Amino acid sequence: MNKLLILSEDASFYHQFIQEKRLSDLEIIATSDITEGKEKGQECNLVFGEPSLIQHVISDLPQVAWVQSTWAGVEPLLKPTMRRDYVLTNARPLFGPLISEYVFGYILAHTQGIDERRRAQQEHKWEATTPTTLRGQMMGIMGVGAIGAHLAQTAKYFRMKTKGYTRRSTDCKFIDQYFHSPHLLEFIADLDYLVCVLPNTPDNQNVINEMVLQALPNHALLFNVGRGTAIEDEALITALETDQLAGAVLDVFREEPLPAEHPFWDTPNLQITYHTAAISLPIDTAPIFVENYGKLLAGQPLKYQIDFAKGY
Amino acid sequence: MNKLLILSEDASFYHQFIQEKRLSDLEIIATSDITEGKEKGQECNLVFGEPSLIQHVISDLPQVAWVQSTWAGVEPLLKPTMRRDYVLTNARPLFGPLISEYVFGYILAHTQGIDERRRAQQEHKWEATTPTTLRGQMMGIMGVGAIGAHLAQTAKYFRMKTKGYTRRSTDCKFIDQYFHSPHLLEFIADLDYLVCVLPNTPDNQNVINEMVLQALPNHALLFNVGRGTAIEDEALITALETDQLAGAVLDVFREEPLPAEHPFWDTPNLQITYHTAAISLPIDTAPIFVENYGKLLAGQPLKYQIDFAKGY
Repeated sequence: MNKLLILSEDASFYHQFIQEKRLSDLEIIATSDITEGKEKGQECNLVFGEPSLIQHVISDLPQVAWVQSTWAGVEPLLKPTMRRDYVLTNARPLFGPLISEYVFGYILAHTQGIDERRRAQQEHKWEATTPTTLRGQMMGIMGVGAIGAHLAQTAKYFRMKTKGYTRRSTDCKFIDQYFHSPHLLEFIADLDYLVCVLPNTPDNQNVINEMVLQALPNHALLFNVGRGTAIEDEALITALETDQLAGAVLDVFREEPLPAEHPFWDTPNLQITYHTAAISLPIDTAPIFVENYGKLLAGQPLKYQIDFAKGY
Repeated sequence: MNKLLILSEDASFYHQFIQEKRLSDLEIIATSDITEGKEKGQECNLVFGEPSLIQHVISDLPQVAWVQSTWAGVEPLLKPTMRRDYVLTNARPLFGPLISEYVFGYILAHTQGIDERRRAQQEHKWEATTPTTLRGQMMGIMGVGAIGAHLAQTAKYFRMKTKGYTRRSTDCKFIDQYFHSPHLLEFIADLDYLVCVLPNTPDNQNVINEMVLQALPNHALLFNVGRGTAIEDEALITALETDQLAGAVLDVFREEPLPAEHPFWDTPNLQITYHTAAISLPIDTAPIFVENYGKLLAGQPLKYQIDFAKGY
């Protein structure tokens, strides 16, 4: 008998959803309370829920063999001192479409000149400036996993050109051209849009620094939907204040919520989106657990596994 | 020998482009001047250019057999008193992708809450409201020609549901469900987005009237990228002032430029886009003439023909 600890803000939804599937050989304990999770999870070999909660119980669960995260990002479970003797899987297939809506929403608002058109309307001015088409524009994607691949696919749908910057991988068919270290500046040089989807690994600290921001064309837009640590905050502020780039749309920050006194709040052409670019909905996340539980029962490898060594 | 009159604001670009293709059996006269077009076009059997210019010369060209429009809309050539003894083709394949960028730019700006996020930022407020995903939302498209079909395709890319309202056609695979007169209100009833792509025909006058606007859900957005005559202006103003719909994005108007005293300028939640949703670029339009000229030489039917009886 498998025993599942559901530790989540949405524990009761997940409990009901999974129970209704009548999965064989599964007993469920569900809670949103860390203390209760620690106590009742003693005999659980499976855990499903938010990494922010699971990090507080994982060292106290002697039987754990598999943890399914409801999130894409799993850093709370990747600290160097934490155990790594179990299989960790995330919910990566859910987020590509949501991040595409987010990134292309801001890109199209920019190319369509929505703000400029509105200002002209306020002045009753017939302002027939042609919007820019995305066709032929260049998107650079840093980190081409499930989310980066979906962004590239959407870029191709809109007839854009795409470049990918990755550690080694070159397997996304929607990326025209791949770059790896030390060719970062070559990757950057001709971008209209730079989208950072990098996870928080030691290699990625401050990868978007003064040099990179200077290499980026002045008309470019920068997106960060990965982790805040990838950007050198001060360098970005300077770049925006001196018009070295057209704008930045940031979903993630070194500290969240962003502290009230942080200069980003008032930096020109910087748009804050409060880590909302890809919220997992329980109705979408629950089937991922069910799918992977089927793999487990069938003795097949689980999908969406995290490599502890790489950190993603 | 075929003789081509190019009558266009971009006459010299088109002249050079077509000449460089060294098309067989073709002599070219190019001008942006109506009077010159009338004089020099006497022996021309082919015309290529803007309907706004061609309407002034078409009755004076005894030899004309084919007119290729650089636009999608060809109303200037469809007035009841005008000749219809030639083949009229338009540039319809160019506009679908541009109109998709336009419509989805405004839709995503709305679902992503770009304005709301910006207002929160001005107050230094961490506003983590989840944006709405397009998945599962319902788009209704009135007029499913080349442009409507591309909108439906883009809607499907974003995992939306689609309904089409057409005179009779039911041939677009990206439309889930088709409606025809007299089932307009059924078509309207559950839309999140209504996109009007209707041409200016007698049937389409004021088709978006008080009854239709009342049938539309209150949270819906209305787009008009067809022709201004499809909307009853007063009814739309009332609907927006009384929150019967969430907003309207209008690219086309009964009179363009929109007169300075028109109430649309100041109607709440109405966004004016100055007939810029799909501008033909000469670099894209010229190949359409070349393609169709090839058909002509090969004795094949021309592509993108207008049916004078239908008006599109």
